[in-house]
Amino acid sequence: MFQSIGYGAKTARSKLEPMTFERDDPKPNELVIEVLYAGVCHSDIHQVKNEWANTVYPCVPGHEIVGRVKQAGAETSRFKEGDLVGVGCMIDSCRQCEACSAGDQNYCEGPNSWLATYNGPMTPATETEDGANMYGRDNTYGGYSDVVVVPEDFVLRIPEGLDPKAAAPILCAGVTTWSPLKHWGVKAGDKVAVLGFGGLGHMAAKLAKALGAEVTVLTSTPEKIEDAKRLGADAAHIETDKTALAPLAGTFDFILSTVPEKHEIGALLDLMKRDAAFIVVGNLDVADGVDNSKLAFKRQTVGGSLIGNLQETQDVLDFCAANGVAPEVEMIDIAEINDAYVKIENGEAR
Amino acid sequence: MFQSIGYGAKTARSKLEPMTFERDDPKPNELVIEVLYAGVCHSDIHQVKNEWANTVYPCVPGHEIVGRVKQAGAETSRFKEGDLVGVGCMIDSCRQCEACSAGDQNYCEGPNSWLATYNGPMTPATETEDGANMYGRDNTYGGYSDVVVVPEDFVLRIPEGLDPKAAAPILCAGVTTWSPLKHWGVKAGDKVAVLGFGGLGHMAAKLAKALGAEVTVLTSTPEKIEDAKRLGADAAHIETDKTALAPLAGTFDFILSTVPEKHEIGALLDLMKRDAAFIVVGNLDVADGVDNSKLAFKRQTVGGSLIGNLQETQDVLDFCAANGVAPEVEMIDIAEINDAYVKIENGEAR
Repeated sequence: MFQSIGYGAKTARSKLEPMTFERDDPKPNELVIEVLYAGVCHSDIHQVKNEWANTVYPCVPGHEIVGRVKQAGAETSRFKEGDLVGVGCMIDSCRQCEACSAGDQNYCEGPNSWLATYNGPMTPATETEDGANMYGRDNTYGGYSDVVVVPEDFVLRIPEGLDPKAAAPILCAGVTTWSPLKHWGVKAGDKVAVLGFGGLGHMAAKLAKALGAEVTVLTSTPEKIEDAKRLGADAAHIETDKTALAPLAGTFDFILSTVPEKHEIGALLDLMKRDAAFIVVGNLDVADGVDNSKLAFKRQTVGGSLIGNLQETQDVLDFCAANGVAPEVEMIDIAEINDAYVKIENGEAR
Repeated sequence: MFQSIGYGAKTARSKLEPMTFERDDPKPNELVIEVLYAGVCHSDIHQVKNEWANTVYPCVPGHEIVGRVKQAGAETSRFKEGDLVGVGCMIDSCRQCEACSAGDQNYCEGPNSWLATYNGPMTPATETEDGANMYGRDNTYGGYSDVVVVPEDFVLRIPEGLDPKAAAPILCAGVTTWSPLKHWGVKAGDKVAVLGFGGLGHMAAKLAKALGAEVTVLTSTPEKIEDAKRLGADAAHIETDKTALAPLAGTFDFILSTVPEKHEIGALLDLMKRDAAFIVVGNLDVADGVDNSKLAFKRQTVGGSLIGNLQETQDVLDFCAANGVAPEVEMIDIAEINDAYVKIENGEAR
């Protein structure tokens, strides 16, 4: 064990505050990474406030981490001291199940699923028979901290040409939208609609555009119409504007919903072409209006997708570097973190 | 015009009765087909009773037709007088749209969509600007009749080795389940669940089994458990039997729902593997319980599918002939049709 410092919450009602906590000593296959930048994800706020009813305290958030290798274990080989690296939502998985064997660690079917960068295993120890989980720890501590300790296999390379500050959100918001765009085969010339234009939505629009798709942003916020066009969307509409949407009926090959709340999608299915997919990444809830009188007549699907695997994460970092794609970021000092949370919750962050 | 005889309904409240009606004279690209057998589809009953609010009367149902070519037009080439042929749900389409060009006539995006074997174009004339549809007729008359007149391109070959009586239901129930099994890539070794065990469900189970899949039937009718096993299912359970279903969690590659009513599917999503699809062919309605807290964690999809295209229809006929697959059929005389409808509506048909 060694002492680490960071910003964390002690209870669901606590603000984030500076704290000292213990991290496991690095194993031979692990890297100690000095944190340079950590992105603030909306899910950090859900987790800190225990809104998913699974938070282990103290909670030190942060799963969009860019840092520099401070110490490389004896059994590591891909990185050396001083390398610029990234860490996303996962720091380990069972490495044995069908999903892990297929390279889809983000769908790990092992006894404790994947090990989250903070808040520990996705399936906690208490759900196993002997009360212990395969990772040997019930909690993990994220990037709002001086260092993180991560198995080398779960560390990404930050490519040259990518601003390290801009790289952080790619590790979560970027790959969460990249993975379904690639999995469902979005390609040049396709017509893609992105529903919602926050952290995920603006990355989805930029990535789809860089893939050569024609991108339409659908938002509920009038002020974001111009933002979307400025950031490269071919068109942007208020999602309930029937006059604007009528000519778009049956035109989209793919719709990605990044809206973070429960959402009625019946009317949006009308916008899709034959064989199109409507994929939800923004919200874990029951989708209202999944109407088979619409789906069946065009062989459409509605589905979900969860972050992305390690290869996809490296791919999207490399793609962003090669194509000049960067998320919009606002730099804050960690001491301002509580104010930033309020701003995100009020939808004031751009 | 020439006189044809058949069994039809004059209003939504009429029973089927013998009637004489006029058919268009055959065109040079058309076949006149003497009807030998016509299947009774549950949708015949919906249509006769105007339960989809789109029935054009008189309504002469029947879209699972097996017959013999009586007269072949001058511009036909694939069939000759005396050939045994089949006609399914469609007798024409626009032949020009993206879907038709891709061979998916069943998703025709032309101004009047495809031309149904009975009850005319899927999108009726009154919805076009000039009030006339591209097929030049508002109604068509199906196989409960002495003859049908069908463009040769929409006529299927009944392969040798297939009992003509058994071939009829393959033209609708067969292809409706075959098409999604093939489109979603069901293959030998896959685990497939079939929800519902009526006309569609029993064909789905037989086809999936013949494709080499391990087939589990889920039904709400206890008496059908043994039927399903007798007809080849590897297992059959009551769909609400939590004890029986618990060990099946996360095991199915594909679930095909043939249930003809609105259905809660939330609990069934738990039975699916990563990347599995839940496809609904039985019911055109809003699906309840499409829960993205389940879908996203396994990248699953929920979708719909509508009958199948011409090539798939020929394929399933050939596959059934080659693999000894045949629907369970009960032969009736057309004079017993009204009693048969009551039996089907009461769920008494096997």
